[in-house]
Amino acid sequence: MAELASAPAETPVDPANWTCPAPLRDQPVVVMGHGGGGALSAELIHDVFAPAYGNPTLAAMGDSAVLHLGGARLAFSTDSHVVRPLFFPGGSLGDLAVNGTVNDLAMSGARPAYLSAAFVLEEGVELSVVDRVARAMGAAAEAAGVTVATGDTKVVEAGHGDGVYVTTAGVGLVPEGVDIRPQRARPGDAVIVSGPIGLHGVAVMSVREGLEFGTGVSSDTAPLADLVAAMLAVTPDVHVLRDPTRGGLAASLNEIARASGTGVRLRERAIPVPDAVVSACGFLGLDPLYVANEGRLVAFVPPTEAEAVLAAMRAHPQGSGAALIGECVAEHPGMVVVATALGGTRVVDLPLGEQLPRIC
Amino acid sequence: MAELASAPAETPVDPANWTCPAPLRDQPVVVMGHGGGGALSAELIHDVFAPAYGNPTLAAMGDSAVLHLGGARLAFSTDSHVVRPLFFPGGSLGDLAVNGTVNDLAMSGARPAYLSAAFVLEEGVELSVVDRVARAMGAAAEAAGVTVATGDTKVVEAGHGDGVYVTTAGVGLVPEGVDIRPQRARPGDAVIVSGPIGLHGVAVMSVREGLEFGTGVSSDTAPLADLVAAMLAVTPDVHVLRDPTRGGLAASLNEIARASGTGVRLRERAIPVPDAVVSACGFLGLDPLYVANEGRLVAFVPPTEAEAVLAAMRAHPQGSGAALIGECVAEHPGMVVVATALGGTRVVDLPLGEQLPRIC
Repeated sequence: MAELASAPAETPVDPANWTCPAPLRDQPVVVMGHGGGGALSAELIHDVFAPAYGNPTLAAMGDSAVLHLGGARLAFSTDSHVVRPLFFPGGSLGDLAVNGTVNDLAMSGARPAYLSAAFVLEEGVELSVVDRVARAMGAAAEAAGVTVATGDTKVVEAGHGDGVYVTTAGVGLVPEGVDIRPQRARPGDAVIVSGPIGLHGVAVMSVREGLEFGTGVSSDTAPLADLVAAMLAVTPDVHVLRDPTRGGLAASLNEIARASGTGVRLRERAIPVPDAVVSACGFLGLDPLYVANEGRLVAFVPPTEAEAVLAAMRAHPQGSGAALIGECVAEHPGMVVVATALGGTRVVDLPLGEQLPRIC
Repeated sequence: MAELASAPAETPVDPANWTCPAPLRDQPVVVMGHGGGGALSAELIHDVFAPAYGNPTLAAMGDSAVLHLGGARLAFSTDSHVVRPLFFPGGSLGDLAVNGTVNDLAMSGARPAYLSAAFVLEEGVELSVVDRVARAMGAAAEAAGVTVATGDTKVVEAGHGDGVYVTTAGVGLVPEGVDIRPQRARPGDAVIVSGPIGLHGVAVMSVREGLEFGTGVSSDTAPLADLVAAMLAVTPDVHVLRDPTRGGLAASLNEIARASGTGVRLRERAIPVPDAVVSACGFLGLDPLYVANEGRLVAFVPPTEAEAVLAAMRAHPQGSGAALIGECVAEHPGMVVVATALGGTRVVDLPLGEQLPRIC
């Protein structure tokens, strides 16, 4: 689906009046980009899922829903994982399945507690492969301090799956006084990323295409709930958290800008991009801002708290490479721009689909 | 996979020493039966999943996990749904995806509250099909009184899916004083089924194979939480609840017998099987006890409460066809037997796989 992974358009998309390009409208079918976390995914949610089971909880559109049940304030989230290949440098489907949901819960400020794990297996896949995935999940769950409490397994005929798909859901407790959601971004907020970007996407691509980029790039897959707890210990008034997975930093920041009606201005030089990611992206024609991460977060925090939060992040293993990369602005609401190293400014648009399908 | 759907073996399986038949061991790969809810599924859980992320919550092996979080007593459950075809008489994938998880929660006595919905879409499936599934989910959620609070969508290439797979997870509140789990079956308990069995499996088979059985069989897919609440209003001391989906009544009763170390004795004449199911099963060579239901439950209740619970069930729309079908016994622990209409007794074994793959 290379046509969906082309460079972002020059003009920003108006979310209220977004219409799919005519070629897709003429063939009203699912394309790879509908799973890419970009504009096509947003359209699917807006046009299909929200009307079908529309309700205010879903409409809040955070990485996880925050809800009240039995006196507890819970975060609840789910992700299906269809990454290909199942094992890649630095991680596996099992790691992503645990860390992906753990991190979605953490992006509400929650302490993740319990996960479910539902497998869709393809007839003929070796049981040893299923075992490796399950063991990776067990190890990742232990590392993240969560319990896999319930599960399910279905099998589909050969040719109707791809080895192993895993869907996890998770629940966690949101501390009192914490209210983290994209709508809370405010002009003046500092925009912080927790470490170097692009490693996960490049690591998966390297094995998928049989390429080698420099001296081995490993996925950044990691649980982020501890890092979030360290940040909240500085101030409960963190405004927004997001883990920039599919669609990368570009998609996450565009979603936040649109949800909050603010703009985002980044400084290109401040964004930590490893040399190996730069060279791999150059080779493949990708933009690191659009490449998926699985162990990074982007935070919007009040400017008065930025230094202290940054220091707490840098003192944590998952945030040692944290950097202040820009700020939230009142100008160009809904739009993300980056001040380039050469002194220019370019728009960082919401991607249409995904540069790298099946990355998580 | 007809070899996995053969008639149950004559001798019961010893769960502690279960080993897979040699032909499968020689080819240690996933077969359709691993998703059938029978002995192969149990082996997968016992040998692969439980060791990988073993913990007491998972090991309880109820339809849903019961856990404590923030002072609340929660039920938490998940199911992937890969039914083929997506639409069938009386329901659709969307109905199953909602009711399946709602019912798993209800089988802990919980009041279901929130669901997640994760879609794995196959490239090329029509958006109108996705829309129909989502709308069915919305309608089913409304009927069941639950909110779809969070979701996810992934897309896989054509040839790696089958239109739409949906994984739901759910959370609900378990009332104080309610402790429903398979281990609580006691000799003397009355065994009650909430209505006629076999309708869902036969309805799906009828459209899959292009067959017509009598005058139209419809799936029984329905939410059961209200029925459970009506039963608990009679007595909170319901011992066991189970919705006999994959593997039918036979699999559910075998699981309960093994988990509790009791036996189950059924009266064949007392089991409500619609004529259309009898004739369809005769035609297809199936046993109605092994056919999946999606809107029925089986209950183990103390004998002193049986009459009152049965009356409450019959007064409820989802339990109007409820029947006392047998009792829990101290003899033959781990084994289910049925007293036949002809005066004999036969063992109802745990099925190896599933007579009808991809039924839910």
